[in-house]
Amino acid sequence: MKNEQIVLAKRTEGIPQDDVFRYEEIEVKEPNNEEVLLKSIYVSVDPYMRGRMNDSKSYTQSYELDKPFNGHIVAEVVQSNASGLKEGDIVTGILPWQKYITINEKYVTKIPSTEVPLYLYLSVLGMPGMTAYQGLLKIGKPQEGETVVVSAASGAVGSVVGQIAKLKGAHVVGIAGGSEKVNYLTETLGFDEGIDYKKDDFAEALEKAVPNGIDVYFENVGGALSDEVFKHLNKFARIPVCGAISSYNLKGEDIGPRIQQTLIKSQALMQGFIVAQFNEDVKEASEQLAQWVQEGKIKSEVTIDEGFDQIPNAFRKLFTGDNFGKQVIKVAE
Amino acid sequence: MKNEQIVLAKRTEGIPQDDVFRYEEIEVKEPNNEEVLLKSIYVSVDPYMRGRMNDSKSYTQSYELDKPFNGHIVAEVVQSNASGLKEGDIVTGILPWQKYITINEKYVTKIPSTEVPLYLYLSVLGMPGMTAYQGLLKIGKPQEGETVVVSAASGAVGSVVGQIAKLKGAHVVGIAGGSEKVNYLTETLGFDEGIDYKKDDFAEALEKAVPNGIDVYFENVGGALSDEVFKHLNKFARIPVCGAISSYNLKGEDIGPRIQQTLIKSQALMQGFIVAQFNEDVKEASEQLAQWVQEGKIKSEVTIDEGFDQIPNAFRKLFTGDNFGKQVIKVAE
Repeated sequence: MKNEQIVLAKRTEGIPQDDVFRYEEIEVKEPNNEEVLLKSIYVSVDPYMRGRMNDSKSYTQSYELDKPFNGHIVAEVVQSNASGLKEGDIVTGILPWQKYITINEKYVTKIPSTEVPLYLYLSVLGMPGMTAYQGLLKIGKPQEGETVVVSAASGAVGSVVGQIAKLKGAHVVGIAGGSEKVNYLTETLGFDEGIDYKKDDFAEALEKAVPNGIDVYFENVGGALSDEVFKHLNKFARIPVCGAISSYNLKGEDIGPRIQQTLIKSQALMQGFIVAQFNEDVKEASEQLAQWVQEGKIKSEVTIDEGFDQIPNAFRKLFTGDNFGKQVIKVAE
Repeated sequence: MKNEQIVLAKRTEGIPQDDVFRYEEIEVKEPNNEEVLLKSIYVSVDPYMRGRMNDSKSYTQSYELDKPFNGHIVAEVVQSNASGLKEGDIVTGILPWQKYITINEKYVTKIPSTEVPLYLYLSVLGMPGMTAYQGLLKIGKPQEGETVVVSAASGAVGSVVGQIAKLKGAHVVGIAGGSEKVNYLTETLGFDEGIDYKKDDFAEALEKAVPNGIDVYFENVGGALSDEVFKHLNKFARIPVCGAISSYNLKGEDIGPRIQQTLIKSQALMQGFIVAQFNEDVKEASEQLAQWVQEGKIKSEVTIDEGFDQIPNAFRKLFTGDNFGKQVIKVAE
C-alpha cells in the first residue's frame, strides 16, 4: 500500500499557495498494541487552520515546519491491534493529513451510527456544529423574540448558528456573499433575512433587516463587515467571537474602529471562544444536534471535493468564498 | 439669595471650551410638598459626562441644549418641606449644576455619617468607587495570584480598582501618566508596579511588569495604550470596559487594531458596563467600601478646586491629566 502525507513546507503571509503544502511518500506503519491502522475517507478543511500555519501564539498549537498538517478526519479502521475497535469501524478525530494513519485508539472516537452521511461528522455533527451550538447558547444566549445576526451565514458554523437561533425563537439575519448563498439562507435554512455583503447597499440592507437592533452577533468574519454590524447593537448585546476570516490572510495589521466605545455604549459583551473550552455537556449537545438533524430541523450543506491532491485547493476556497457550506475532501471510498 | 446654573450652550468636538458652558442667573424656588431646597457643596466632574455632551445614542441620556448639566453633587438641606429630610442634613444625588436646587426628596440620598470628608461620597464612597468595585468583581473576577492591570490607575476609579485587586491577592500593575502619579501607585496605594505611559519605553516596561501575562485588564483609557496591553492577555482574560478616555475628545474616528483576533487567541471576554447595571448588591458593596476606607485599606486622593465658576476648568482637567485622583469642585462651605 502506498502512503502519502502533506507537510507544512514553509510559513507564509496571505492565502497559502501550493508551495506551502509539500506531498511526501511515507511508509504504512503496522499498528502496535492498542493501535489501529486507519484509511482516511473524508478530510475536513477549516478556517482556524490558517492561524496554525503561522508561528505565533494562538489557542491551538502552530503546525510545525516539515511535519504533517492535521485536522478532523473521518477514517475507516483497516487493521486493528486495539481492543475497542475492529476492522470496518468508522472513526473520527484530529488526525494527520495522511492517506493511511497508524495511531493509538484513544485518539479517535467511533462514529455510533452510519444512518447519516459520514461527512456530517465533519460538519453539523462534528466540530463546526458543536462550535455553533456552544458559542451561540453559552455566550450568545438568544432569547425568544431577540434579533440574532450571524456572518459567514451559509458556512459550516454560521448555517447551524442561524438554524439553532430560529429554533430558540429569534429573528435571524444571515450575512453571506452572493445571491445564491443569500437565497439559500432564507429559502432552505429558514432564516428571516439574508443580506449580501458584496452589494453596495449592504449597510442600508442591514439597517432595514434589524429594525429592533441586534441582541446577538455571532462573529465569524470581522473587518469592515462587522464594523457595520456593531453600529446596531442593543443594550446588553452579546457577541460570541468565533472567527475573523476576513483577517486571516491580511499581510498588514487588521485596522479599523476600536471597539471600546461601542461596548460601553451598549453595555455589550464580546467573548472569544473555541469549542474545546465548553466540555461540560458535550454529550447532551451532540445528542441534541443529532436529534435536530434526524428530525430535519437542522440542514447542512456540504461541498465535497475529491482526491487527496485537492486538499490545498479546497482549503483556499474557504477564504475566497468559492465553497458552499462545509468544505470537505473525499480521499477514499 | 442669588442662584446660578450652568447650561449646555452648544455641542462640540474635542475638549469642550468655555463657550460650551453658559452661566445663567435663575430664581431660588421655594420647596413644595415633599421637596427640599439644597445648597450645593461639592460638585463632581466625571469623564462619562463628555459623552452626554454629544447628541448621540449612549448609555446615558444626552444633555439637552440650553438645559443645565447634571451629575453627582453633595449638598446640604437648607429648607425642607419633606418628611424624610431636615435642615442641615447632607445628601447626595444626580443633581443639576446649580448653586441652589429645589427637588423632590426621592431624588436624593441622605449621607449616613459625616465621620469621613464629604467629598469621599463623590469618589470612593460614591459612583467611582462603586464602578470600580462592580466592574472589577462582577466582570474582572480577579483570583489570588492573577495579574490585574488597570489604566488611568491614579484616577478616581482606577485607584480603587487596583486597591481592591490587591485585597483579593492579585499582582497589580497600574498605568498612569507622569512619575508623580506612578510613584503614588506603588508608594501610597500599594500597587506592585506602576508604569508611565508617557515614557518611550512604555511597551518594554509593561512587558517586564507582567511576566505571567495579564488575567484582568480594567479598561479606562483605550487607544494605543490599550492596544499594547492587549498583546499580553492570558487565556480566559477578562476586560471590564469602563471607559476610553483617550477617545472621548477625538475629532475623527478612533482607529486601531481590531480586537477580534486578540479575543479569539486568548478566549478572552470584554464587556462594556456602567455601574447602574449592577443593582443587586449595592447596599453590601457600599458597606464593604466604607469598611475598607475606615480601616485604611483603601485610600483615595481627591483634587479639590474652589468656586462654581471653576467647574468647566476642572472638567477639562480630566482629559489633560492635570488632576490627581478624583476631581471635585467645592462650591460652598
